[in-house]
Amino acid sequence: MAQTGTREVFQAFSTYAAIVGVKILLMGPLTAYYRFTKGAFANPEDVALKPAEERKKLLVTHPDVERNDLETSVPFLVLGLLFALKEPSLAVALLHFRLFAGSRLVHTVSYVGALPQPCRALSWMVGMGVNFSMAYRLLSSGLML
Amino acid sequence: MAQTGTREVFQAFSTYAAIVGVKILLMGPLTAYYRFTKGAFANPEDVALKPAEERKKLLVTHPDVERNDLETSVPFLVLGLLFALKEPSLAVALLHFRLFAGSRLVHTVSYVGALPQPCRALSWMVGMGVNFSMAYRLLSSGLML
Amino acid sequence: MAQTGTREVFQAFSTYAAIVGVKILLMGPLTAYYRFTKGAFANPEDVALKPAEERKKLLVTHPDVERNDLETSVPFLVLGLLFALKEPSLAVALLHFRLFAGSRLVHTVSYVGALPQPCRALSWMVGMGVNFSMAYRLLSSGLML
Repeated sequence: MAQTGTREVFQAFSTYAAIVGVKILLMGPLTAYYRFTKGAFANPEDVALKPAEERKKLLVTHPDVERNDLETSVPFLVLGLLFALKEPSLAVALLHFRLFAGSRLVHTVSYVGALPQPCRALSWMVGMGVNFSMAYRLLSSGLML
Repeated sequence: MAQTGTREVFQAFSTYAAIVGVKILLMGPLTAYYRFTKGAFANPEDVALKPAEERKKLLVTHPDVERNDLETSVPFLVLGLLFALKEPSLAVALLHFRLFAGSRLVHTVSYVGALPQPCRALSWMVGMGVNFSMAYRLLSSGLML
Repeated sequence: MAQTGTREVFQAFSTYAAIVGVKILLMGPLTAYYRFTKGAFANPEDVALKPAEERKKLLVTHPDVERNDLETSVPFLVLGLLFALKEPSLAVALLHFRLFAGSRLVHTVSYVGALPQPCRALSWMVGMGVNFSMAYRLLSSGLML
């Protein structure tokens, strides 16, 4: 029974890790596409001819957003794997994985679609919450310092 | 038999993950060395005195390239581990790992040696292809959403 | 016995991976907080009104530091996991994990507290050393190329 449960939790992690991994992979091309079609650029030189106000908007924080994506997704992939090995119940594991994958999807849509701000900030917070919850479970299941 | 096969696949992943990990570690120092010796800089201020055309070239996209390296290598490390646990045949696993490690090496050489463009773009595509192939195998081996 | 040892090494890795993961997660908010309170910014436009000399100092290399943090921590998380699976002795494993976690803590404190330079550089080198040592053990335990 426990064996089957662990395998199912692992299967679930495997599915969501693949989804999050593919999202990371698509982040680069998506941003490149967005930059060319929407006129948002990362290098100050590319927008040097535009007026200062517009420039600020065009440059925005694209590299920051992409790095943030890595800073949130990398811990998920590692903490999630270790969390799955701790034999949580399938329901608890799925709750974590679904919330995280969902929050990152909303995050990317908010970013690419340039939705008004609370969207991206809230989705980022949900992702952080899932990560902290998994880290807490790892640490509370027994420390070995 | 299956046990031996899995152990060999895992040994192969372990070898290639170490190579890719070391490459990520060397990316930072390599870029720093390159910047000092070849005169390529990341901050606009560092090249403010040069003429505009040259400036564009010097600044190039170093931070982008390094972030791209992480964006491609991180999914490989995680997807590759999960892929290795799915008990693929050794030949298929080695094909994936070799192609990926090779493509990243070509990518880094193209970047550091400043080879003409199709090199880096093509090597990036091969790496993406390997990642997508592994993600597809993970997802097609059974979803748990 | 060997089984117990492996489980303890894994428990140790799990603990330190959670710590390193949480540190990665906190890097983003910490930098944002620091930028707002201490007046350090990432975008050239934000400091366009300041004199050139001060500008250079304010912009500093924040995105570089954060990317470096990922470039060092990601290999640790993956190499450490594979290293833990190679059944090292608990003492050797703990030595690696403690040195790495300690060096990253010193690195972050040096960065946020803006301690004089040898601090951050030295802590970075210790982290690199741990990673190379683990990669060496992985590769020397048997290659499968």
